[in-house]
Amino acid sequence: MEDMIQPRVLKGFRDSLPEAEIERAELADALVRVFRGMGFVPIDTPALEYAEILLGKCGGETEKQVYRFRDHGDREVALRFDLTVPFARFMAEHYGELYLPFKRYHIAKVWRGENTQRGRYREFTQCDFDIVGVDCPSADFDIMETICASMGALDVGDYSVRFNHRGIFNRFLESAGARDKSVDVLRIVDKLGKLGGDETGKLLAGFVGDATAGKILDFIRRENDSSATLEKITSLAGGKSEDSVRVAAVLGLAEATGIGQRVILDPSITRGLDYYTGVVFETFLDRLPEIGSVCSGGRYNDLASLYTRQKLPGVGASVGLDRLIAAMEVLGRSGSRSGYTKALILYSDDGSAGAYRKLAAELRACGTACEVYPERKKIAAQFAYAERKGISYGVMMGSEEAERGTFVVKNLVTRQSNEFSSASDAAAFIQRGA
Amino acid sequence: MEDMIQPRVLKGFRDSLPEAEIERAELADALVRVFRGMGFVPIDTPALEYAEILLGKCGGETEKQVYRFRDHGDREVALRFDLTVPFARFMAEHYGELYLPFKRYHIAKVWRGENTQRGRYREFTQCDFDIVGVDCPSADFDIMETICASMGALDVGDYSVRFNHRGIFNRFLESAGARDKSVDVLRIVDKLGKLGGDETGKLLAGFVGDATAGKILDFIRRENDSSATLEKITSLAGGKSEDSVRVAAVLGLAEATGIGQRVILDPSITRGLDYYTGVVFETFLDRLPEIGSVCSGGRYNDLASLYTRQKLPGVGASVGLDRLIAAMEVLGRSGSRSGYTKALILYSDDGSAGAYRKLAAELRACGTACEVYPERKKIAAQFAYAERKGISYGVMMGSEEAERGTFVVKNLVTRQSNEFSSASDAAAFIQRGA
Repeated sequence: MEDMIQPRVLKGFRDSLPEAEIERAELADALVRVFRGMGFVPIDTPALEYAEILLGKCGGETEKQVYRFRDHGDREVALRFDLTVPFARFMAEHYGELYLPFKRYHIAKVWRGENTQRGRYREFTQCDFDIVGVDCPSADFDIMETICASMGALDVGDYSVRFNHRGIFNRFLESAGARDKSVDVLRIVDKLGKLGGDETGKLLAGFVGDATAGKILDFIRRENDSSATLEKITSLAGGKSEDSVRVAAVLGLAEATGIGQRVILDPSITRGLDYYTGVVFETFLDRLPEIGSVCSGGRYNDLASLYTRQKLPGVGASVGLDRLIAAMEVLGRSGSRSGYTKALILYSDDGSAGAYRKLAAELRACGTACEVYPERKKIAAQFAYAERKGISYGVMMGSEEAERGTFVVKNLVTRQSNEFSSASDAAAFIQRGA
Repeated sequence: MEDMIQPRVLKGFRDSLPEAEIERAELADALVRVFRGMGFVPIDTPALEYAEILLGKCGGETEKQVYRFRDHGDREVALRFDLTVPFARFMAEHYGELYLPFKRYHIAKVWRGENTQRGRYREFTQCDFDIVGVDCPSADFDIMETICASMGALDVGDYSVRFNHRGIFNRFLESAGARDKSVDVLRIVDKLGKLGGDETGKLLAGFVGDATAGKILDFIRRENDSSATLEKITSLAGGKSEDSVRVAAVLGLAEATGIGQRVILDPSITRGLDYYTGVVFETFLDRLPEIGSVCSGGRYNDLASLYTRQKLPGVGASVGLDRLIAAMEVLGRSGSRSGYTKALILYSDDGSAGAYRKLAAELRACGTACEVYPERKKIAAQFAYAERKGISYGVMMGSEEAERGTFVVKNLVTRQSNEFSSASDAAAFIQRGA
């Protein structure tokens, strides 16, 4: 192997073979259809940005993971590590060319030099959607309804969008005398699902004492229905306010739209990030609670404060594509599709090559994805190719058939064969799945 | 503006605003539909690779343009600058898991630190499709037919796929005594379209002398039809051989498929790259010859020789997406679409917010992309929003209509209004474009 370079993908990265890429594309296509149907528009931003733009806001863990270097012009640049920071820069830079409210989706790769021992990859796809420029219940609900429509489109079974309001939580902490510990409290409560109530209580007690920990555990417990939960937390937070009115309005919209059983007020939802200022939400699949939230987000009161004085309140969510793909596999919803071809025209005779091509073009014109095996080879090899690509029909045009002006379509699963003289009849037969 | 970071995209890069991104997505979707219909499957590879993998083969210009740095593990890495080198690495690495012939497409971003004065961007999308593992006329033709199907799907008017065979060209140069100058000759002939015959002749004469330059100019001139051209170049190359038989077979397949007038033998097509060994082709739009080829490629006899001893002959092409987008704009084929929403439900009354949402969900269930304006605002502002997003219908549900259980759909272009009591009737009306 002298002079040869070992072909290997970079550590922490992976290739996407056809089966995986088809799966990913189908998932993304389904989401895109939902986003478009709900009034979102796509944008894109560069993979590389000035490092100071991407890193202005962060530090610690994130900063250490960022791919950062000097470009040919000696500029400090970095690969984007999420889609939120570039979106903030985008809104600040193009404010004059855009309109508000601005509803955008963005599906793109991001890069983080994470520790791969945790089974994470250093390149992954994010899928974000946001509504910027308004602060109202309708926009909050729009995002949650879009999550519901996405879950429906992906056919992942029952699920719930659990939401909470940071404002109510903060008022409650204030009244419980634990406002100064809110960051720690939010962080600990965020782990309730993993730790369980007892462990969470112990951890909380370490920060705020036993009595307050008990109050917090009471606060974050869901009641029988969302109205009862809202009543309880509103009262524990010191009574009605803008935040509880907002939650009631969101619940009302969910009821009106017939998804009241999907959109559930859950005071244990906190989202760890400082960033959020209003509603926060996570999405759980009933059959796979253990994989955690497959779509999370919330309201922020100022998207781009780092780059502009223009106030840009917004609400948005991010779909965990890789997690969803894993979930769909477990649920048996994965296509495990290896190709799109419906019919393979078998190649048995060089003299018929033109006839094969003509028939293929006709079948395609009738909407049947089809290909011609490119050369004469043992028929077994051609069938093996069809099987490998999940092609259901073989089309044979031997010299006899060619003379009669016909061809045979064979269902490669049932082994049944039918003779046709017209491509449109054959295409209809194939599309019926006969 | 103390403490604020100026929001600006990195030099040489650009954002994609909704109109541009919708255009790009529609183009890519159309190409993907064609690829799938022809039996190609998608793959993806990482944006970052080991530098030695990406740069093993190249040097000079390309190497200087590559974004290259050390990652967190002190590995020399680089951003991919094309999709061919990663595909070669991919085929070598996954050879055992794949099957041959392997037909793949790959649409993805690549990065080159090019001189931006030439109006080029440092990030752009490539769109490649290849058939690897066979060396036969059917595979060569498959790629050309896919180009034709792509042009048809994009509705760019008349076009031609001009092809040539490196083997015939090389045999001709041999017989003309200019084989040792072939790299220069190919490079000069490649510029024929730009330079014109006279200038090309002068340049050639500088390398091979007047007599041979004349022979070359004669060789690269097209005759009345492809058969006549083939006859001439075959004879100038010293007679029939495998290469001329291949060209005849490709022309035969084009005739059989009814695209004989699209697939034209043109001996002036050389493609500058050493890489190609068989057919080479370029695609020109009749109405925009000056923009150059919008889809080019050819046959190579060994894709991955740098990484494996496994011989992988192949043929493929690359669509110039940015060039095509520019072309479609000039041809008036651009959608200049600013969104997908068909109907905007106007928001006039907080008390009806639930009813708006319910109607929107019903319209969507009938296939109408629709959104609710998120808050009460002057009706003029809501209409301005609709106009900005290219929304054709406004849906009004005032208190009177709400009482009657009806709503009004207004065509925002013709200003005509119709009253409905059922979402499905309204959806049908909107879809009819009434």
